[in-house]
Amino acid sequence: MSKIPHRLYLTEEQMPKQWYNLRSDMKEMHDPMINPATMKPAKPEDLYPVFCEELARQELDSTTRYFDIPEEVLEMYKVYRPSPLVRAYNLEKALDTPAKIYFKFEGNNTSGSHKLNSAIAQAYYAKEQGLAGLTTETGAGQWGTALSEACAYFGLPLTVYMVKVSFEQKPFRKAIMETFGSSIIASPSNTTNVGREILKKDPNSGGSLGCAISEAVEKAITSPNFRYVLGSVLNQVLLHQSIIGLESKSAMEILGEYPDIVVGCTGGGSNLGGLIAPFMQDKLTGKANPRFVAVEPASCPSMTRGKYAYDFCDVGRITPLARMYTLGSDFIPSANHAGGLRYHGMSPILSKLYHDGYMEAVAVEQTRVFEAATRFAKLETILPAPESAHAILGAIDEALKCKESGEAKTILFGLTGTGYFDMTAYASYTEGTMTDHIPTDEDLEKSFATLPEIPGIQ
Amino acid sequence: MSKIPHRLYLTEEQMPKQWYNLRSDMKEMHDPMINPATMKPAKPEDLYPVFCEELARQELDSTTRYFDIPEEVLEMYKVYRPSPLVRAYNLEKALDTPAKIYFKFEGNNTSGSHKLNSAIAQAYYAKEQGLAGLTTETGAGQWGTALSEACAYFGLPLTVYMVKVSFEQKPFRKAIMETFGSSIIASPSNTTNVGREILKKDPNSGGSLGCAISEAVEKAITSPNFRYVLGSVLNQVLLHQSIIGLESKSAMEILGEYPDIVVGCTGGGSNLGGLIAPFMQDKLTGKANPRFVAVEPASCPSMTRGKYAYDFCDVGRITPLARMYTLGSDFIPSANHAGGLRYHGMSPILSKLYHDGYMEAVAVEQTRVFEAATRFAKLETILPAPESAHAILGAIDEALKCKESGEAKTILFGLTGTGYFDMTAYASYTEGTMTDHIPTDEDLEKSFATLPEIPGIQ
Repeated sequence: MSKIPHRLYLTEEQMPKQWYNLRSDMKEMHDPMINPATMKPAKPEDLYPVFCEELARQELDSTTRYFDIPEEVLEMYKVYRPSPLVRAYNLEKALDTPAKIYFKFEGNNTSGSHKLNSAIAQAYYAKEQGLAGLTTETGAGQWGTALSEACAYFGLPLTVYMVKVSFEQKPFRKAIMETFGSSIIASPSNTTNVGREILKKDPNSGGSLGCAISEAVEKAITSPNFRYVLGSVLNQVLLHQSIIGLESKSAMEILGEYPDIVVGCTGGGSNLGGLIAPFMQDKLTGKANPRFVAVEPASCPSMTRGKYAYDFCDVGRITPLARMYTLGSDFIPSANHAGGLRYHGMSPILSKLYHDGYMEAVAVEQTRVFEAATRFAKLETILPAPESAHAILGAIDEALKCKESGEAKTILFGLTGTGYFDMTAYASYTEGTMTDHIPTDEDLEKSFATLPEIPGIQ
Repeated sequence: MSKIPHRLYLTEEQMPKQWYNLRSDMKEMHDPMINPATMKPAKPEDLYPVFCEELARQELDSTTRYFDIPEEVLEMYKVYRPSPLVRAYNLEKALDTPAKIYFKFEGNNTSGSHKLNSAIAQAYYAKEQGLAGLTTETGAGQWGTALSEACAYFGLPLTVYMVKVSFEQKPFRKAIMETFGSSIIASPSNTTNVGREILKKDPNSGGSLGCAISEAVEKAITSPNFRYVLGSVLNQVLLHQSIIGLESKSAMEILGEYPDIVVGCTGGGSNLGGLIAPFMQDKLTGKANPRFVAVEPASCPSMTRGKYAYDFCDVGRITPLARMYTLGSDFIPSANHAGGLRYHGMSPILSKLYHDGYMEAVAVEQTRVFEAATRFAKLETILPAPESAHAILGAIDEALKCKESGEAKTILFGLTGTGYFDMTAYASYTEGTMTDHIPTDEDLEKSFATLPEIPGIQ
């Protein structure tokens, strides 16, 4: 009988009542968001046409340390949270490692991922402001599903621009969003200028996340009393996702544990930023010195091979500019890249921390990712989302280093979601037809060439 | 702030260490299983060629009240259990009912349902006996997925006969079972005499659960050191599933609650039998007097419209005979019936309890079921399996009766699993193309005509 339980759930009373704003403890702030119209740092009111007001304020507030979670959001969190902190005993045993492996599992809700944590907050603030509806984009479909759930709950109409290649490959993702009452449009579409422009150039375009963002933003600012919401990259999203890290830290404290290494997958950074938040606070304030490892796909390697530069968040170049690790807003990962983690940029907060040496990053190939995913599923009875499996692989690699060195380190990783809607990719792995695609230096040079020139900055 | 939490998880120490055998407290035992070769009550050794030995003993043991859960099974349970007892506050509010609604949620594991509870036990005993492998059948795919997981964990080869119509409609269910390393064969197939016989008569047969069972049993008894396992109907399965009810009862005790009404969906009875077990014990021993409501599909109404008679468990008529509520082993529900709950018979234990007046049963139409499912998903952030949604509808109907009468009853229902692999059915509901199909009396008379004649019995 093991002393530490396999799964630890906090009680409802132990759940965090506030989100933690990591920016408030950063030694140096990331460079400000730039309003492309004025080429000056964006003010909240610059963002009001696109974002709802409270979210715009959260986006630009780098000093408030804690934000109260509104009562209505807390109530909805309690419907599916707290999420468990799980000790991966079977995985440890199979790896024969002295390391202790914990993971925070965010997949136990119908959206199937951590995305719901921010979706509920964003839908709530939109409802509070009396908006008529929201628009957003979705790639793999996790964010779209989460926001559909949240909007259904708060009674807000939602239009989702879904990257066309996903729309066609994942009819069930579309079906689940429609079950929650959302309208789903394949992007690029004829409903926006940006979409029509892209279709004119290439009628068979499969779309991209950057293009879907452009369409969703255009739709929001041209529809009366609509706003746009985004599920990653933004500071507000990392703020909401801090609940992952806060719960993890409380649960580990109850067990008398503290992580030596925190591992997370990264696309836009929403999960990793939330998971590491309170542990990074300890590092920034000198209370502890854990390592942080971001695991990204080799087919979309924004941190390990991107440039730290100002870039647009979308293809249509209508969003504010942010300084981040980026592959260029025109970058599209290979069509054989499975799952999410396909965004060209990275959270400005994480970009800055990485740039300043507080974090490490590794890029991994998807065949290795699915090998780790399948192994994990057999041992721990959870079929991970391909995105989440990047973190599993990162944790396994760290645990194997511990085996080599004989060190009994404590590893915490974020298991962001489940892979029920990714069976096509699993089948291609099982059948041995999955391949890897790593962009060449030339590919990257080409997309770096699209980086905007900003007078006086870059 | 509500005093009773939304979700209550038992701790690992509070988890049951024993399964409860409901038969031990029944006033009258159900009629014995009959060996078709001798037409006499089956003895454990009669079952050894088909079932592994410990499971055959459990099947026929009606006196032992508690069975210790083996340590290895408990360890695996802890990887995904305990499952939460959830208070459906949002649903209560939406219904404006004075009733308190609780549900026990068994869908938080990759198999997506309660089936894993018995799959782990059965795979464990098979491994202990040193078997070379297992065979089984699956309809909607939940049982096949659960057993694939369990067999992957214990390192046992598994062949799954999957009803052909599901095999073709649910490629992702097949993919997930293959991810866990199982071999999947569309049934009817050319790999068995039963299958070849059926294909000779109808080369385009879409198959049925009864046919898939026949093939799996034939394959098991003709393969060296293989055995067959079944995910419902059998006494052993209800025994393993008692963990659902035992955990529910412990959790309700912690909250100071006791159900006035227990509601569950029924196909073969595995979930309902497990959920009600300890509460039925209270009823049988006079400690309490809850109502029990079995909710079955109107398209496969074994309890509400079936005969209480001896019947075969399979189309090929090679399994032992059991006395149960049955529609006749040739009965196949309409092709437009979504999800599971498509078996012609019902657990002998539940059949006897229903026959003796300890339980009620209702049959409901699937369009109403999907209406309840969609409503529930929007309120409680869980997209239920169509099977589970029968119980949701049953609970809603009871809660609305409470609203009518003004009674603040406590309702407990079993939410057996998630609907991620049932999006085709959800889409047909959302699009308004879903229809109901209720067998006519003539349909049923035709399938009742296939009931076997048993000398001296019926």
